[in-house]
Amino acid sequence: MAGINPAIAASFAPPVMEARRWLQGIEFPPDRPLINVSQAAPADAPPEGLRRAIADAAMDLPGAHLYGPVLGNPDLRAAVADQFSDAYGGAVSADQVAITQGCNQAFCAAITTLAGAGDEVILPVPWYFNHKMWLDMQGITTRPLSCGAGMLPDPDDAAAMIGPNTRAIVLVTPNNPSGAEYPASLLAAFFDLAQRHGIALILDETYRDFDSRTGAPHDLLTRPGWDQTVIQLYSFSKAYRLTGHRVGAMVCGMARMREAEKFLDTVAISASQLGQVGALWGMTYLRDWLASERAETLARRDATIAALAGLTGWRLKSAGAYFAWVEHPFAASSATLAPRLLREASVLALPGTMFTPEGDPVGDRHFRLAFANVDRTGIAQLAERLALFRP
Amino acid sequence: MAGINPAIAASFAPPVMEARRWLQGIEFPPDRPLINVSQAAPADAPPEGLRRAIADAAMDLPGAHLYGPVLGNPDLRAAVADQFSDAYGGAVSADQVAITQGCNQAFCAAITTLAGAGDEVILPVPWYFNHKMWLDMQGITTRPLSCGAGMLPDPDDAAAMIGPNTRAIVLVTPNNPSGAEYPASLLAAFFDLAQRHGIALILDETYRDFDSRTGAPHDLLTRPGWDQTVIQLYSFSKAYRLTGHRVGAMVCGMARMREAEKFLDTVAISASQLGQVGALWGMTYLRDWLASERAETLARRDATIAALAGLTGWRLKSAGAYFAWVEHPFAASSATLAPRLLREASVLALPGTMFTPEGDPVGDRHFRLAFANVDRTGIAQLAERLALFRP
Repeated sequence: MAGINPAIAASFAPPVMEARRWLQGIEFPPDRPLINVSQAAPADAPPEGLRRAIADAAMDLPGAHLYGPVLGNPDLRAAVADQFSDAYGGAVSADQVAITQGCNQAFCAAITTLAGAGDEVILPVPWYFNHKMWLDMQGITTRPLSCGAGMLPDPDDAAAMIGPNTRAIVLVTPNNPSGAEYPASLLAAFFDLAQRHGIALILDETYRDFDSRTGAPHDLLTRPGWDQTVIQLYSFSKAYRLTGHRVGAMVCGMARMREAEKFLDTVAISASQLGQVGALWGMTYLRDWLASERAETLARRDATIAALAGLTGWRLKSAGAYFAWVEHPFAASSATLAPRLLREASVLALPGTMFTPEGDPVGDRHFRLAFANVDRTGIAQLAERLALFRP
Repeated sequence: MAGINPAIAASFAPPVMEARRWLQGIEFPPDRPLINVSQAAPADAPPEGLRRAIADAAMDLPGAHLYGPVLGNPDLRAAVADQFSDAYGGAVSADQVAITQGCNQAFCAAITTLAGAGDEVILPVPWYFNHKMWLDMQGITTRPLSCGAGMLPDPDDAAAMIGPNTRAIVLVTPNNPSGAEYPASLLAAFFDLAQRHGIALILDETYRDFDSRTGAPHDLLTRPGWDQTVIQLYSFSKAYRLTGHRVGAMVCGMARMREAEKFLDTVAISASQLGQVGALWGMTYLRDWLASERAETLARRDATIAALAGLTGWRLKSAGAYFAWVEHPFAASSATLAPRLLREASVLALPGTMFTPEGDPVGDRHFRLAFANVDRTGIAQLAERLALFRP
């Protein structure tokens, strides 16, 4: 038989699909229905106006069903450039924006412009698993950077890891899986480090619309020459409930954009036209709605923090955006506990082991709780179930 | 500044985007409007019923805006499996079908399950440029396989190229860019070759709905153990005018599918939900419409063959599906001639150099004419313009 590329064979299976498979064949007792805190995605449809905008485009917009430009539709690229310039206080031009088939693809494009087999990329641990998977399947070595208090990585630790083959540091803020919001000063320190070493700083801000802070989360885009160092990633999926359309964005310098265009042409040709219509409509008309979504998510975060504070043995390490990163009180690994938690408490949560290197005790000791789809009553029930869970 | 991955720097720029840039600033005389035979894509919207199905789903279908399964929606995977089983006389199961964000992505997924940096893949020349670009940016060596009479590759030539690092042979039929329809016996010979050497045979049948032959174009899916060797790729874009939605498919064995799922999760998470709705609707309700589309495309092919036969110096090498591959009578390279052809004859066609290795005289001598969007009057005008072109 034709063989398997060892780099992909060594990569792990998609965690979210694995967790979905745990659900198969399980029936939950009527008095203890499933609480699903596994996936970091909206569970409901977008507002009717946005749905209508997409439906109208499907019927009437010339080009809605045809190829668009590789780097995205000019109107959406311009809107993103304006919004970024406004939000971050810098000057981002439409030429520095690419629209991708989701933020995962933006990450893959960014990495491919930077690194190939044999190169190295620094990822804080716990990491977002799809980042690790892409590096693995590309034959790129991941250098894991442990997080300290507040689940924040230390630039000095990162500095000690940089060698001749290092191509980038990747930061996700607010973080998936930990929810940690990286302070502007921390991002500035990582920027200086990356700039000094001539490597890239990739900032994945998929969850930025749910950041608890007001104002710009960093000032990097105001710095001269930011585009030689920073690659910023964004997703329309979470803000506007467009996960099923796969629309994301990458912001970077124009020399790198020409390389990214090769990748996107080859892998995507273009992003979905209707998805781009939805993203632009959302950016234009859903500002107030998004503000209320953010407020509700922040309230759920507060409820999660409060509920977990009352739990003996469980310890919240950080929380923000959609996520809480919690330490459990048991001797067994989270990988063993997760299927039991599902069967015995009807709680589906991803074990920390899905976000950490194999054998890392940090993974064994933690769970990611994606609380954003659970209302405050549900969060209280979640805490009760965790309190009663005796594996 | 952060560096550029040399593998992507060495890859070439997207040819279709380059050709679009040639158009910038050109005004065509009123008596000689543009004839665009550059892009292999439908130019019109899909039928109203399909547009309506997508619009209705956008308004009312639960899940239309949410993530779906990584490998595609079960209903569409089942429909593809049934259609393939029916069309090829084999037994393809839904588990052997993945839905991708377009056929380019299916190719990238297939290759990534097979090969990494330092491996080799055999591509007939002229090739489909995005195939070459993906291999380049992955650090995979492309072994170019020259085509002979009728623009067909020779399995014996391929056999001589197979070495310890060879992972796959890629065949596109009907071919892009040549239009050649590969005979079933030729595909059988390549299958035997690949099977004997334990390498994969990737069959890209993006244009299969416009094949001039009736019945199954090959019997490979009827052979025991086909799934150990064959990876078949398909696109919904051309048949149902869905290019703007990015929906394709990959058919392969289940062991390989588990590896492909890792790639698709990481790059795509899932294909567009509305695109999948459209693809399924098209497969279900547009059979007769597609038959008439095919008949019209075949008529245009015949018209192209007839029109070019009357041209002194120009020589048609092959034609089928959307494409004719023609030799021009001039000393200059097609790369030099293409922008002149646009300015002086208002004809936009891709030069052969975009489909061949650098320095290959085959590229210099040929053009690809994507005639499918040009009606018979336009095809006659195209031939007149070529006849008058005196660079």
